[in-house]
Amino acid sequence: MIERHFRRSPRSADVRVGIGDDAAVIAPRAGVDYAISVDMLVEGRHFLPDSDPELLGHKTLAVNLSDLAAMGAQPRFALLAGALPSSDSEWITTFMRGFDALAARYGVELIGGDTTSGPRNLCVTVIGEVPAGAAITRAGARPGDIVHVSGTLGDAALALAVADARVDVDRALVPALRRRLDAPEPRVALGIALRGIASAALDLSDGLTGDLTHVLDASHAGATNDVAAVPCVDALRALLHGPRRDVALQALLAGGDDYELCFTAHPAMRDRIANLAQQLSLPLTPIGTITDEPGLVVCDESGRRLPSLPRAFDHFA
Amino acid sequence: MIERHFRRSPRSADVRVGIGDDAAVIAPRAGVDYAISVDMLVEGRHFLPDSDPELLGHKTLAVNLSDLAAMGAQPRFALLAGALPSSDSEWITTFMRGFDALAARYGVELIGGDTTSGPRNLCVTVIGEVPAGAAITRAGARPGDIVHVSGTLGDAALALAVADARVDVDRALVPALRRRLDAPEPRVALGIALRGIASAALDLSDGLTGDLTHVLDASHAGATNDVAAVPCVDALRALLHGPRRDVALQALLAGGDDYELCFTAHPAMRDRIANLAQQLSLPLTPIGTITDEPGLVVCDESGRRLPSLPRAFDHFA
Repeated sequence: MIERHFRRSPRSADVRVGIGDDAAVIAPRAGVDYAISVDMLVEGRHFLPDSDPELLGHKTLAVNLSDLAAMGAQPRFALLAGALPSSDSEWITTFMRGFDALAARYGVELIGGDTTSGPRNLCVTVIGEVPAGAAITRAGARPGDIVHVSGTLGDAALALAVADARVDVDRALVPALRRRLDAPEPRVALGIALRGIASAALDLSDGLTGDLTHVLDASHAGATNDVAAVPCVDALRALLHGPRRDVALQALLAGGDDYELCFTAHPAMRDRIANLAQQLSLPLTPIGTITDEPGLVVCDESGRRLPSLPRAFDHFA
Repeated sequence: MIERHFRRSPRSADVRVGIGDDAAVIAPRAGVDYAISVDMLVEGRHFLPDSDPELLGHKTLAVNLSDLAAMGAQPRFALLAGALPSSDSEWITTFMRGFDALAARYGVELIGGDTTSGPRNLCVTVIGEVPAGAAITRAGARPGDIVHVSGTLGDAALALAVADARVDVDRALVPALRRRLDAPEPRVALGIALRGIASAALDLSDGLTGDLTHVLDASHAGATNDVAAVPCVDALRALLHGPRRDVALQALLAGGDDYELCFTAHPAMRDRIANLAQQLSLPLTPIGTITDEPGLVVCDESGRRLPSLPRAFDHFA
């Protein structure tokens, strides 16, 4: 099974032992640190039984690469452990097509794996390289730093809200929103470019307000952000000014599944960040400021503090 | 949840970022390679719903350390991803007690984790250090090398066979057999000591004949082994000569869950291996010879080739 689906060639020069032994062996290159992360995706919780296996293969790796991007790391290696309800050869072949395509794009080599029978569960460990000491953590935000996010937020949550008939949007927009939910693009190039620019970073997987709170906690700081500044697609902006503002605000601030980066940077970095946005053709939008008052404050379009922050909507609950 | 159950201190000097960020960051030490392995344990397949969580915590890490031992690697880091049916705080606390106790004994630092709700599933990634180029693989066995195994084989399978009433043994022996099944001891010190001695090694998790075949395939070689030479407890040896020889032979050769090391070494290593066995107070028993004829031959106590090799017994099937 491992032989058939997972063995790859050729191997990178720093892989001494690839997939198929008791362990893979890698030879670290001089002057690099390794960033290592693990994520587990469970059927019924992170994906549905009828999810497209190819898209799922993409997403399973993408959410892990997003973690590496948040550290400023260059993805290098992955290990994939999976439980499957039966030896569903076609399912895993299709899943691996999506996984491999994304891995190939980012030069990720599969160096280890484990498969077993059981309720469907996919667990990926990824390893990336970062110059020694250059990893971007959550702990470096300082008062006065500007909070930025990449791309647009709330697209994936909006796709779910539409699917659940909680809101309606122009049907022509749905495929693009759906793609943001099903096949997120990890911000790898951005993460690498943010080395030396960002004071702190993390990836947005659970929603802006919850995730940003992790940065604030780790940095012992607070932040003030503006709803009006948070970038989103026009359809979501329009919903913010309509009768389903609650759903729209939830999607924007707490929707999750964004897989954009949220990062902080000294105000002097403004021009470098603007140049970077242009280079990458990716909006990098200032949405607020780090303060020395602990806690997260979000102001509405009139500058009034939101009395409470929206919570994540659990569409499996 | 991660904060409560998984955050540890202090960190090793080469851990730049520990648990709690998007990824852990480790700084490789000069002259070392990293051995990396992943294993997934599924409820109903690798353990039962009523398994003692503390023993399971031990075993979950132990089976991974066993993989590192087979490479000759010194365990250093672990990442633990787990799906749990509910936020079963007591269960995970007890599980972590077993996991942590073993981790502490081998100096393993937990550097990453992920928890989610779902059918119970535990996925551990371990990382060990080995001097550059010194990892022991499955591929180095050469004709004339002697095949060895550590400890005794079949103990865990015998415990299961007794539990299933397929065979009976003196009740006084059961706790020790059961402990071999529930709390295997990874052969870490042995694996490290085998650097420069063993030409190939792997850990016995699925049963001797199946696992040894992996070495033969990787080494493009064959082997001839003797049932009479395979070390086992007296109770199992006695059963081999009784009416349930089939069950006993299956436990010995294909029982699985042994977590002993099987290794090959040039005959000139005999004295070094004997000294090592004494140092470690661990039997290291020659059981056969590598040949240039592909395939695995096992001879019975009269020197006759077994017409067929026993297959693993799946006690969950």
